[in-house]
Amino acid sequence: MNPFPPEPARRTVALPGPWKLTSGVELPELVVAYETWGERDRAEEETILLFTGLSPSAHAASSPDDPRPGWWEGMIGPGAALDTHRAWVVCVSALGSCFGTSGPRSLDPARGRSWEDEFPEVRLEDTARAAGCALRALGLKRAHTVVGASMGGMSALAYALLHPGEVERLVLLSCAAASDPWAIAIRALQRRVLAEAGAEGLRLARALGLLSYRSADEWRLRFGRRREASHAPPGDPVKFSVETYLEARAARFAEVFDPHSYRVLSAAMDRFDAADFGDGDLVRALAPLAGRRICVVGVETDLLFPVRQQEDLARACAAAGGRVVFHRLPCLAGHDSFLVERETFAAVIRSFLGSP
Amino acid sequence: MNPFPPEPARRTVALPGPWKLTSGVELPELVVAYETWGERDRAEEETILLFTGLSPSAHAASSPDDPRPGWWEGMIGPGAALDTHRAWVVCVSALGSCFGTSGPRSLDPARGRSWEDEFPEVRLEDTARAAGCALRALGLKRAHTVVGASMGGMSALAYALLHPGEVERLVLLSCAAASDPWAIAIRALQRRVLAEAGAEGLRLARALGLLSYRSADEWRLRFGRRREASHAPPGDPVKFSVETYLEARAARFAEVFDPHSYRVLSAAMDRFDAADFGDGDLVRALAPLAGRRICVVGVETDLLFPVRQQEDLARACAAAGGRVVFHRLPCLAGHDSFLVERETFAAVIRSFLGSP
Repeated sequence: MNPFPPEPARRTVALPGPWKLTSGVELPELVVAYETWGERDRAEEETILLFTGLSPSAHAASSPDDPRPGWWEGMIGPGAALDTHRAWVVCVSALGSCFGTSGPRSLDPARGRSWEDEFPEVRLEDTARAAGCALRALGLKRAHTVVGASMGGMSALAYALLHPGEVERLVLLSCAAASDPWAIAIRALQRRVLAEAGAEGLRLARALGLLSYRSADEWRLRFGRRREASHAPPGDPVKFSVETYLEARAARFAEVFDPHSYRVLSAAMDRFDAADFGDGDLVRALAPLAGRRICVVGVETDLLFPVRQQEDLARACAAAGGRVVFHRLPCLAGHDSFLVERETFAAVIRSFLGSP
Repeated sequence: MNPFPPEPARRTVALPGPWKLTSGVELPELVVAYETWGERDRAEEETILLFTGLSPSAHAASSPDDPRPGWWEGMIGPGAALDTHRAWVVCVSALGSCFGTSGPRSLDPARGRSWEDEFPEVRLEDTARAAGCALRALGLKRAHTVVGASMGGMSALAYALLHPGEVERLVLLSCAAASDPWAIAIRALQRRVLAEAGAEGLRLARALGLLSYRSADEWRLRFGRRREASHAPPGDPVKFSVETYLEARAARFAEVFDPHSYRVLSAAMDRFDAADFGDGDLVRALAPLAGRRICVVGVETDLLFPVRQQEDLARACAAAGGRVVFHRLPCLAGHDSFLVERETFAAVIRSFLGSP
């Protein structure tokens, strides 16, 4: 089970400002929260840079410094998919999130209080550039391998395109070159619900998000039409277990997540389009990946990033000259499968990163 | 294009009260709005009873009495799928809806004002029984053929199970014996948004519903990542065409539909389970359909009632002794395909109803 709330990362690196966003707006300062696994001595040999999805912090897994389980527990460590016997692993928290990296909860020095709804629009390219700046500030020359799932996969792709010549291997899980209109629609609706539903806004938006993160098949097997025996609000006398599950998950999320971060990251996912790196031509955009090894993984039950999108991404990477491996996984847990069915993902990633 | 708002049906039949709902609550009176096509003289030979989905009125198609296009225009008439050369066709508006049949907008005589949020819980079995009462009040002995899509398909199934021996042919389109948890979750969330988002509630709930009525593939081809050039609200500078489409559709709906009706019908869809007619055993429940001709139709891109559900329903009807025809249609418009890709549905229905 994915632990939530995520534990914030313990380390941050502060970068000198002003730091210019893709939009042209300048942040007076930039802080990047990160966490690392393995021995720093291995970093020159291989650094693995991991980007997160929308919800988690950089605390991807437990470590000797911080034994609390992370959102990708078991995927990082000696002999794990991201193998600390061979590599130094660093995970960065996304720009605009609320777990240590600059975002709506950070202090706006000009106003002497946190940014909140005044935090500027960020793009996933900004998260990718911020990660690059953080690595340099930590004395590292490059990330040899970049890994991400969902929003993290898009950020990883942006990183590779913004740092041509640096990345040798790219692992893109349950993501796409750009979001489809159905994904845009369900996220835009989450932002509208967030804006209109007051105190319930973040809970309802998150519940709506969960509808796109899981699969109908999983819920059918898990909940069926089971009802909550005790619950009987007026006018709606039947409450199904799936409703209780969604409410509990969403409430737990809303207790810790920042609504402004939710809006900022949600819009950044809609906005990202790798084809922008090639004037609208995706294959041209991916040209810097020629000769690089790229692993693209999709899940058949994914509603948010349907597996057709990973097929399209793999095909475009190959057309751009990348050395592409594509996996179509029959996982049941939909978009969240990379969090839920970790063993399946671990096997695929281990096989890819373990081979020359 | 499906005309919306729907035109209310022109005719109503008032049934003497009190009229007991499945829940045990009594309505002081029952009014059923309906519309008919063809010659009443044909009714003894064949009466086709059509149930509606959640949104429409009983004005399913234009007629000499009312030339305005209906929600299933082209599907009813001389030589059409529901062929008025051979049959008399009647469509009834659902109990709890807001287009003439008793519902939250009806007068509650005890309080001297409309029911609104005090309207009792209804079930699709109530809509089916109300239709039966209306037919009897109109002097008809039976419906030979019962047809419905979505909520209307569930109501049609309920009608057949509540009037054993009466129905000879049953056409069940894009529906199921019961809703899956994903469908329950997205509808429960619509009701929560409706309750929490104030004046925006019905618009947001409807937009959320539309996410389940259409398909990702359709929207990808129709909208792609096209943007609205003119729109730039602060903090979210990009607006995609799919957002504008959803907002416009939802706003048009919210102008005419009643929020209490939305809640009542939405909960009735969650609640319906044909297996309830057989103490939880679906095949036993369907036993009254033994020997009857049943046409079950599903669409591959349906998110709300996935085609697996129509396959399961067809299998259960066959196991109960029904003479079943099943069609799996490769339509692109998802759950709404019966409204959008009418020619495809017309061909299937015509073939079924035209054969002995």
